[in-house]
Amino acid sequence: MWGGRFSEATDAFVAEFTASVQFDQRFYKQDIAGSIAHATMLASVGVLTNQERDDIIAGLTAIKADIEAGRFEWRIDLEDVHMNIEARLTDRIGITGKKLHTGRSRNDQVATDIRLYLRDEIDELLGLLKKLQSGILSLAAKHTDTIMPGFTHLQTAQPVTFGHHLLAWFEMLVRDSERLIDCRKRVNRMPLGSAALAGTTYPINRAYTAELLGFEAVSENSLDAVSDRDFAIEFSSAASLIMMHLSRMSEELILWTSAQFKFVQIPDRFCTGSSIMPQKKNPDVPELVRGKSGRVFGDLMSLLTLMKGQPLAYNKDNQEDKEPLFDAVDTVRGCLLAFADMIPALQPNIPVMREAALRGFSTATDLADYLVKKGIAFRDAHEIVGKAVALGVREDKDLSELTLQQLQQFSDKITDDVFAVLTLEGSVSARDHIGGTAPAQVKAAIERAHQRIEQL
Amino acid sequence: MWGGRFSEATDAFVAEFTASVQFDQRFYKQDIAGSIAHATMLASVGVLTNQERDDIIAGLTAIKADIEAGRFEWRIDLEDVHMNIEARLTDRIGITGKKLHTGRSRNDQVATDIRLYLRDEIDELLGLLKKLQSGILSLAAKHTDTIMPGFTHLQTAQPVTFGHHLLAWFEMLVRDSERLIDCRKRVNRMPLGSAALAGTTYPINRAYTAELLGFEAVSENSLDAVSDRDFAIEFSSAASLIMMHLSRMSEELILWTSAQFKFVQIPDRFCTGSSIMPQKKNPDVPELVRGKSGRVFGDLMSLLTLMKGQPLAYNKDNQEDKEPLFDAVDTVRGCLLAFADMIPALQPNIPVMREAALRGFSTATDLADYLVKKGIAFRDAHEIVGKAVALGVREDKDLSELTLQQLQQFSDKITDDVFAVLTLEGSVSARDHIGGTAPAQVKAAIERAHQRIEQL
Amino acid sequence: MWGGRFSEATDAFVAEFTASVQFDQRFYKQDIAGSIAHATMLASVGVLTNQERDDIIAGLTAIKADIEAGRFEWRIDLEDVHMNIEARLTDRIGITGKKLHTGRSRNDQVATDIRLYLRDEIDELLGLLKKLQSGILSLAAKHTDTIMPGFTHLQTAQPVTFGHHLLAWFEMLVRDSERLIDCRKRVNRMPLGSAALAGTTYPINRAYTAELLGFEAVSENSLDAVSDRDFAIEFSSAASLIMMHLSRMSEELILWTSAQFKFVQIPDRFCTGSSIMPQKKNPDVPELVRGKSGRVFGDLMSLLTLMKGQPLAYNKDNQEDKEPLFDAVDTVRGCLLAFADMIPALQPNIPVMREAALRGFSTATDLADYLVKKGIAFRDAHEIVGKAVALGVREDKDLSELTLQQLQQFSDKITDDVFAVLTLEGSVSARDHIGGTAPAQVKAAIERAHQRIEQL
Amino acid sequence: MWGGRFSEATDAFVAEFTASVQFDQRFYKQDIAGSIAHATMLASVGVLTNQERDDIIAGLTAIKADIEAGRFEWRIDLEDVHMNIEARLTDRIGITGKKLHTGRSRNDQVATDIRLYLRDEIDELLGLLKKLQSGILSLAAKHTDTIMPGFTHLQTAQPVTFGHHLLAWFEMLVRDSERLIDCRKRVNRMPLGSAALAGTTYPINRAYTAELLGFEAVSENSLDAVSDRDFAIEFSSAASLIMMHLSRMSEELILWTSAQFKFVQIPDRFCTGSSIMPQKKNPDVPELVRGKSGRVFGDLMSLLTLMKGQPLAYNKDNQEDKEPLFDAVDTVRGCLLAFADMIPALQPNIPVMREAALRGFSTATDLADYLVKKGIAFRDAHEIVGKAVALGVREDKDLSELTLQQLQQFSDKITDDVFAVLTLEGSVSARDHIGGTAPAQVKAAIERAHQRIEQL
Repeated sequence: MWGGRFSEATDAFVAEFTASVQFDQRFYKQDIAGSIAHATMLASVGVLTNQERDDIIAGLTAIKADIEAGRFEWRIDLEDVHMNIEARLTDRIGITGKKLHTGRSRNDQVATDIRLYLRDEIDELLGLLKKLQSGILSLAAKHTDTIMPGFTHLQTAQPVTFGHHLLAWFEMLVRDSERLIDCRKRVNRMPLGSAALAGTTYPINRAYTAELLGFEAVSENSLDAVSDRDFAIEFSSAASLIMMHLSRMSEELILWTSAQFKFVQIPDRFCTGSSIMPQKKNPDVPELVRGKSGRVFGDLMSLLTLMKGQPLAYNKDNQEDKEPLFDAVDTVRGCLLAFADMIPALQPNIPVMREAALRGFSTATDLADYLVKKGIAFRDAHEIVGKAVALGVREDKDLSELTLQQLQQFSDKITDDVFAVLTLEGSVSARDHIGGTAPAQVKAAIERAHQRIEQL
Repeated sequence: MWGGRFSEATDAFVAEFTASVQFDQRFYKQDIAGSIAHATMLASVGVLTNQERDDIIAGLTAIKADIEAGRFEWRIDLEDVHMNIEARLTDRIGITGKKLHTGRSRNDQVATDIRLYLRDEIDELLGLLKKLQSGILSLAAKHTDTIMPGFTHLQTAQPVTFGHHLLAWFEMLVRDSERLIDCRKRVNRMPLGSAALAGTTYPINRAYTAELLGFEAVSENSLDAVSDRDFAIEFSSAASLIMMHLSRMSEELILWTSAQFKFVQIPDRFCTGSSIMPQKKNPDVPELVRGKSGRVFGDLMSLLTLMKGQPLAYNKDNQEDKEPLFDAVDTVRGCLLAFADMIPALQPNIPVMREAALRGFSTATDLADYLVKKGIAFRDAHEIVGKAVALGVREDKDLSELTLQQLQQFSDKITDDVFAVLTLEGSVSARDHIGGTAPAQVKAAIERAHQRIEQL
Repeated sequence: MWGGRFSEATDAFVAEFTASVQFDQRFYKQDIAGSIAHATMLASVGVLTNQERDDIIAGLTAIKADIEAGRFEWRIDLEDVHMNIEARLTDRIGITGKKLHTGRSRNDQVATDIRLYLRDEIDELLGLLKKLQSGILSLAAKHTDTIMPGFTHLQTAQPVTFGHHLLAWFEMLVRDSERLIDCRKRVNRMPLGSAALAGTTYPINRAYTAELLGFEAVSENSLDAVSDRDFAIEFSSAASLIMMHLSRMSEELILWTSAQFKFVQIPDRFCTGSSIMPQKKNPDVPELVRGKSGRVFGDLMSLLTLMKGQPLAYNKDNQEDKEPLFDAVDTVRGCLLAFADMIPALQPNIPVMREAALRGFSTATDLADYLVKKGIAFRDAHEIVGKAVALGVREDKDLSELTLQQLQQFSDKITDDVFAVLTLEGSVSARDHIGGTAPAQVKAAIERAHQRIEQL
Repeated sequence: MWGGRFSEATDAFVAEFTASVQFDQRFYKQDIAGSIAHATMLASVGVLTNQERDDIIAGLTAIKADIEAGRFEWRIDLEDVHMNIEARLTDRIGITGKKLHTGRSRNDQVATDIRLYLRDEIDELLGLLKKLQSGILSLAAKHTDTIMPGFTHLQTAQPVTFGHHLLAWFEMLVRDSERLIDCRKRVNRMPLGSAALAGTTYPINRAYTAELLGFEAVSENSLDAVSDRDFAIEFSSAASLIMMHLSRMSEELILWTSAQFKFVQIPDRFCTGSSIMPQKKNPDVPELVRGKSGRVFGDLMSLLTLMKGQPLAYNKDNQEDKEPLFDAVDTVRGCLLAFADMIPALQPNIPVMREAALRGFSTATDLADYLVKKGIAFRDAHEIVGKAVALGVREDKDLSELTLQQLQQFSDKITDDVFAVLTLEGSVSARDHIGGTAPAQVKAAIERAHQRIEQL
């Protein structure tokens, strides 16, 4: 490809070490689509004849079919997806194939391909997120009245509804969708036309190519366009947040399926056993997803480090943008697929959840509020309830299991109406405002949630 | 604060180890603003009397003045900014002070404070970015015709204009502004009202508090609201990208001020010398900024790791969100300040840049294009020019320094009109399309750039 | 400091932005010790007179006392700890003070200081690790026979002893000590004498200075010595592993203190409550330590990014090595201190642990082994036990709670000797080899452990 | 594998999502070696007959041959390398194949395999490091007298020799070897015998198995042994440091081969050109290596995140340890291979280096030292030289190009012996102590270096 200036051939190991076709063949589809649009534009401005354009399009279409049928041999010595396809095109249609590269270089070509690729992947991930969000809503809708303990510091805090808890997961994922949508805007700008770094001397019509490829805008500066990899980093950051959220959901599922919690069962088809211990049913999917969060964080760190301190414009370092990006895409896709199937199939153990909420003094705050309403200052009420709890801890009884006499030790304001306050239903229903755990609020939140994901 | 249930006092080391007031006092202003809005809302729904509200507001206003006058003593035993201020308020206005905490908890309070804080900081950073963007544009406007070598792989590639190069920096920073604006939307949602985790039993009006504090929306789920730290991660990611961009600009400045490049001088006031070597004038600011990129990447990684695998809702781990966030904010602010001053003061060395563009065979592509126009296929033209370059390398001469005879060795299509093609001005002007390096395009891009930053 | 070559003063903001005295004053002690050794060596080779040496030592000793008494004013305009101390020395002892800097530069001086500092900190951390290791051993020694469920996938797996579990923590920490010791070797090499980058023209005796400062060796190459920051990265990596281990221990403590597990109590003095929920007793220390792991991972990432792609020799970027290193040191120190106090004070809830081990089919593997001994192939035995477990799940009974009749449904090889096999003690004692959970093995392991930490 | 307890089959997507055979087949060799040792040990303690042992060994040996001949079909439904090989063994030798798994589980098996694998890889990397170290020494030996400018802040600082500069690279890589050797000690401990988590009931002889496999020790605690992944993290950290060093060397090579520096040529066989720009010869190998540093940093971050907060013992998360580790191994191996070939082939451009050292006022420190020897205090001498440099900057002349009269403007102590002081050779030779740049010292350092790498 560059013989004239060189006095010896590339070392074989170096050729392999520097090649990218092993992994960049992944976007052959985008490369071909980009080339077809480029040829169409070149013909529209008279750089190619219509016949040349048609030959190129026919050739590329045939190559695409070959690739998809497994009939295409990728060659390391041709370095990358671009040269592999271009070389094959020239084999097929002769000298016209060589004209395709007029007015572009691999620097702007690869930047275009990767943006087209990522745009497609973002759209798929948005679909998967919506599927998972819907699955969560459908499960939540069944459990707007199911009571479980809410935790802070993994200590029993206050009763909440299972539906309310599930909506917390939903909110995380909605932010993820928003971030992908914001990221997509910056992905969907076309670098093509920047050529090697400075633009090209041919009378190109960038707006037309952009229109053909569905880009929202063209890049404003050629030096920036060939060296910018922000989109990969921004995507990996959004992907890291998705994985972080899934890791939190996973952690909860792992806790909830333990023998100690028993709040939820995961259907057998999402679990595996042990080849040694016959009783084991392991929550493999959430464990693996939790573990995979590190992987995507690592991809993000790779990309940030990659770009740190690079002078303009394109440097070979940038070839290293692809594998971390692909890994982030694949990991998130797989995890979302697994969760979208698994979450709606979760089987909550309603009596166990309820029982757990009854223990752990979850209505202690309600007792303090009860005392406040009887005229005691909150700080004092807090102290009184704290002492009652200390007694409960010693006797291994919950507040509602203490006798009226025992409770009255701590305050004579306590009368037998106190037991109504210590009910789970009372506690939950009282938190009746937007964002609160009252069943009515959860139902309303689910309504709104359906509309919100439609509007994303 | 929680004596009743406890049988022994907190260990002194533990009290200090778990306290946050050493660093969270930073948002006293937001804490007080949030409390004033909360009290105003509580009065509007009848939970406080107007008198109580006024006493609280007066007390908090006085405390704010004390803090800003350095008259406030922060106490570790009061753990955090919230308890320090609340305790002082109660000292000042008595029992009414204790009523302020009605219907909220520190979990939603801190989440509100930190969002208010970050919103303010984002606005400041957006201002600094705009200042730096404008500084770049003003320098670029002076150099739309200044020619320098464009590099790929740090090898001379094609001539570009210095103005065009500067606009590449500008584009990076525009994306940074966009990302901060997108991030701000998700920062500017109010968690207050979520209380400890499940909402509160008081008849709060969250929309009113949000309006008072300038929040665009209220959080939709209380469990999510007290445990969400996405905003800190998303901000740190946007901050990492800013730092990555500044590290690239820094790398170029360090190269350009070296004795080997000499493209640019940085005024003495931005440099330091050596206590040993009398000749040294070091580009400290870009070096330090390049180094500080790692710092913000580290902050991002801290926050991602922090949130990985946390079950809902609030856990004490979350206290660790603050220092990395503060560090990211401070680092980006300092670096933008330094660059916003320094960049417009750069002094390009125009003759040296031009001389460098003349060397390194920067117009070799133009020679190939010249041969194509004379009917030679591009691949063949590339080979011909490659050989001419090889001769130049051996003789240490650029293409334009070879004689016509020497050039004609490689192709008899070369005639004496070739030397016009090898000029820098011809090369640069020919790249005349949106995004290209032609002076006319650079001027138009600067025009558009001014409008674009106005519309951000 | 470098007036001659400069035509304008340093910008005030730049002076502050580039100064390091705000944080590098931390190693004033090492700076002074290094200077005293340097002066002693200079006198020994005749570059200083003995009188000059004595004046310098007296001056530095007085300055150290001033600093420690809080009488020293650190000045930003003097940039760093070195110039602050040197300037003060000259104020005190006159012109002789200026001679101290002969044959060295700040580049090798700071590299020396930071290594002395880190060596001291490593020694302190090794002491804290040993304290924590001993604390674990003393708790383990009390619980070599205490049975709890062992988990894989957080599902009940097989019974283990609590002592055995604690020894797993011990092993992690022993590797941490080993790594710090290995790291210390590479920290303890002296860069002093490298001067700015190339060495010095004075007849220095590096071996003598190294001996005075307790360095094991001198650096072999001056360019490397002033630009090497491996030791900071290697330390941060070892620190990250310590934090990762503490995060795992923390996770377990958080689980174990939950209402669902109740395996362990943490004394009240290590916990805090809630200002709202009177019943709360939160495991703040382990939560915070878990959260702080991210912080140290971030420090490591900062340092790696910092050094990526830096050309030799010293660059200003390197100033950014200190804060992440200090943060890693401080974080690990605080966490080890907290754990060294807390761990030996843990109060296991022995009956609850035992009860948990009885549930969850923890002896299912033992039943399979029983069947193997009765001549059934392991795969078939596994299948039989799996079915028995499935019945238990449906009936909510553990294996030992099923009747003989019920068990015999699955295999007629089961006779009433089976119930002995299903005991916890039998299961635990049978794992009787080095590394196994049998009480005898755990006792022996504790013995060895005491010896091993003595030999570290 | 675990049918009894399960009521439905694993979902097909889940089976693929949770399988590891796609990547863990990489250590089939270690898996088979481990199994052969295990079988040998089982026979030695009477758990297997000698015939069974021999059948197993024969079967495994045949399977290994099949794998290496490409005749082995890896099955996703068999999950991992272990089950694939075990299933095939049973196909081959019948029921005896099932006995191989006696007294172990996949938890300790995989931990053993991965340690064996990593031990082998470390040994290979140590060999490659030594090859690269030797290559550097051989190039340095040719250039102990070749003078180039030494840089700090990428500004000309003082003259050094090229050999001295190369030895700085050597020192970095020696620390890398030391770290790998330290890491190898902790890799080379055998977890086998820990079984699922608690040890096994069979009378195993772990010391014997360890001896057969060349392990230096057996793990001391079964719970730790199956959940420990420190070795992968420690290795990735050592690998990150190697990559960081290679990134620094790469940065220098990229600078040195630029048209501005021209210090060094990289032979054509290590470079590639451009398909567009005929003159380009790009330093692809160093660029790619610089970029790949991020990749390994990312692997490290993945692994740290993976392990953060995991409770004991084995969790499925741990399956995610393999791909980052493999990626780190492969990346470092490839980069060392490329550098070991390329470095000794570098062609320094001696006259250009010398010319660069003459410019940039590199001997200004020597002039200051000259004035000190004439009785001027160093601070004053520094000021005088600074002014002379300022004149030189204005007149675009180096110090040695100023006339005696011009120099005497700044100090009448300057006489015509000054010009001898301003020579490069004088400057370099004067730095004559261990670690200094004097040619005699560099030669001695090369001598020592050869011995040191022999002793590693």
